[in-house]
Amino acid sequence: MTTSFRFAVNVTPKPGILDPQGRAVEGSLRHLGIAGVSAVRVGRRVELTVDAPTEREARETVDHLATELLSNPLIESYAVENVGAASSARAQEPVA
Amino acid sequence: MTTSFRFAVNVTPKPGILDPQGRAVEGSLRHLGIAGVSAVRVGRRVELTVDAPTEREARETVDHLATELLSNPLIESYAVENVGAASSARAQEPVA
Repeated sequence: MTTSFRFAVNVTPKPGILDPQGRAVEGSLRHLGIAGVSAVRVGRRVELTVDAPTEREARETVDHLATELLSNPLIESYAVENVGAASSARAQEPVA
Repeated sequence: MTTSFRFAVNVTPKPGILDPQGRAVEGSLRHLGIAGVSAVRVGRRVELTVDAPTEREARETVDHLATELLSNPLIESYAVENVGAASSARAQEPVA
């Protein structure tokens, strides 16, 4: 018996690491007439469904995936978020 | 007087929209020997600091930015998260 768990992995550039996308956003702010915005950092957000017997095992799978495939541990850090089972992505791509 | 608010904008492909990055992650799973993972969706996570008199005004700035610059409303949806003032990005790039 397995249960489906839905997670989000937030991957962000580590402090001190250059973030060209964040700088590009900051450079566009004045063209949009937006003031007061600073310290922009652009990362990735990966949402996924894991089928596992327990939430702990599901989290282990997510951690494995996050370090091996979703992030570059040298320059990025990640945080795992439990986003519940009922997500739009599941509705669209049902778990087999 | 303004206060600094730290937000994260999570941008995800809308249901029904193709997500080539998500498919690429799914295609790599078997090489890593990871089973039970499905419905992978890859989006962006943008963290930023907004200086504004009230949190409501700060949120309005974030919404403006999210629709104009950070997401493509035709194919992506976004959600705004309050992540508090004390973030690593602020420590690295102090608010002017």
